[in-house]
Amino acid sequence: MASENVAPGEFELISRFFKGPAEQFAGTALKHPKAMGIGDDGAVLAPLQSGEQLVMAMDTMVESRHYFPDMDPAALGHKCLAVNLSDLAAMGAKPLGFTLSLAIREPRESWLEDFSKGLLGLAQQWDCTLLGGDTVRVPLESAETISVAALGTVPTGMAIMRSGAREGDDLWVSGELGDPMIALTQDHRDTKLCWPQPRVALGLALRDIAHAAIDISDGLASELAHLMRASSAASSTNLVARVRLEALIDCLGPRLSSRLAAGESPRDLCRIAASGGDEYELLFAAPAEHRSAVEGLAKRLALPLHCIGRVTQSPDESAFSWPVIWEDAQACPLPASEWPKAGFEHF
Amino acid sequence: MASENVAPGEFELISRFFKGPAEQFAGTALKHPKAMGIGDDGAVLAPLQSGEQLVMAMDTMVESRHYFPDMDPAALGHKCLAVNLSDLAAMGAKPLGFTLSLAIREPRESWLEDFSKGLLGLAQQWDCTLLGGDTVRVPLESAETISVAALGTVPTGMAIMRSGAREGDDLWVSGELGDPMIALTQDHRDTKLCWPQPRVALGLALRDIAHAAIDISDGLASELAHLMRASSAASSTNLVARVRLEALIDCLGPRLSSRLAAGESPRDLCRIAASGGDEYELLFAAPAEHRSAVEGLAKRLALPLHCIGRVTQSPDESAFSWPVIWEDAQACPLPASEWPKAGFEHF
Repeated sequence: MASENVAPGEFELISRFFKGPAEQFAGTALKHPKAMGIGDDGAVLAPLQSGEQLVMAMDTMVESRHYFPDMDPAALGHKCLAVNLSDLAAMGAKPLGFTLSLAIREPRESWLEDFSKGLLGLAQQWDCTLLGGDTVRVPLESAETISVAALGTVPTGMAIMRSGAREGDDLWVSGELGDPMIALTQDHRDTKLCWPQPRVALGLALRDIAHAAIDISDGLASELAHLMRASSAASSTNLVARVRLEALIDCLGPRLSSRLAAGESPRDLCRIAASGGDEYELLFAAPAEHRSAVEGLAKRLALPLHCIGRVTQSPDESAFSWPVIWEDAQACPLPASEWPKAGFEHF
Repeated sequence: MASENVAPGEFELISRFFKGPAEQFAGTALKHPKAMGIGDDGAVLAPLQSGEQLVMAMDTMVESRHYFPDMDPAALGHKCLAVNLSDLAAMGAKPLGFTLSLAIREPRESWLEDFSKGLLGLAQQWDCTLLGGDTVRVPLESAETISVAALGTVPTGMAIMRSGAREGDDLWVSGELGDPMIALTQDHRDTKLCWPQPRVALGLALRDIAHAAIDISDGLASELAHLMRASSAASSTNLVARVRLEALIDCLGPRLSSRLAAGESPRDLCRIAASGGDEYELLFAAPAEHRSAVEGLAKRLALPLHCIGRVTQSPDESAFSWPVIWEDAQACPLPASEWPKAGFEHF
């Protein structure tokens, strides 16, 4: 952990809250006599198992844009790693290690301590070792910025791409949707907003089941379009997802469910569920013959997995403009004005 | 390259200046049928050669702190990767790939184009593939922040640590010193300040020669102390570097050399050379029997390598407070008031 830009007392804080605990929790990434973690110009990782490939992801969170300035620092530490583990999960990768760049205005002891606890708590849960990074100061009028670069592994050839969906696949989504978006305006301390649980175990299990997967951090509607476009391009076919909008009724989180109980329009609530970002669930495509395997997986992981639609081939070769058809309860296409919003601007 | 936080036209810019060129230059990191670069939740790397270990480093540059706001964007793109390749070089690692996080106020087309050219020019030079990352917006009053996380490889057990120096080793430093520090106040466009050349080839050659190495981005005096402390701790001995301050006269860059020619005190100029940061040279410790090998290496790489001192064992076990003795021309210790400044605060 380099810290050339902070005063000596601050160097000590960083050592206490990052280097020390990271050494205590050193996991698989450093389990080798010739491996070494924080403390040199770079970390040296244990050799990978033979037959493994690396997966690498990087995500940045900016204060007041991706998180509220008063966010619980423990939750922030958790979340900046969680969003990266969610990317690894979508690839079917097993977390291995990560580096952290913390660009902050001034090191505050209690803030660093809590941030580190949230960060390293999640890291330890998934055997993902803090390998280094740096802490730098930004001017007092600047937003703080947190970047994590994460490494994971997959058996060679087993990574799940977003481009692998095929005609006839079922489309599934994990967990519950919509609550983070509502919480943004109603409750900054919402658990799902602040402490997202990356679907790492699901991603690992999907290696043998799914043709394609993507994390839906930008919202289901938007990410579904990405998955379909990538799969069409990769297969040189014109694939279209058909999703019955109101099928999402089973995916509503508690906040949207209570609005349903209060009489709000099911279609409106489903549209919110499909539009909202800051979700760290997985969307995946799996062949119909794996339906019971997916249902078994949901039970084993105690995680709801909802079949929301299917992948079809477009009969109309010229109709490539939008790769998702949102349907009403009678399987008739909805007009575009009724579709969920695709693409979510955080904040 | 995720870009969820920028408008659609900006997505296109990022694709044009990063994803497209990165695909063209895809190197060893992606040379495998089951590898995949930018475009999914994470990159999937080609399996490593058997007998290789990964090295990982991450460095962040903050506007107005690590670089001037008007810095040539091509130089900035070059430098944000160069500082990471310098870390890999200090470990003896061969560059493999990297991710980039660009936290900017607004995407400007010509700026992004030039930044990308500088970044990917250096990347291509060292077969270091851009694997992903993200582009996010910071508020208009914020400093911009650029983070790079870089991967390299070493044959297992061959990484060069800063902790390996032993009694009797010679201490060497590459290249010329001092000019970046002078340029900070005199010439923001100085080539060595803006376009540092990471000593990758030197690092690779040192695997078989050096006991220890470190990059001197914080300045020679400071990094020498780090190397000595790490080596003392690792060997449970009390090692002390003895360096004749005026031996650095051979290492002065053109700016300091011209001041020497103008009659300025050699000792003062050497002190500046040893204090200044923003240097991306390597400091290394090698056994005396490799002296001719090091000299041969200097010729082969056309890179000056200067022997500046040696590693000794302190006769006084209690004198562990400072691990470097700066000597005058007669090998007598200088008083602390005459030492170079250790620790350089960028800007």
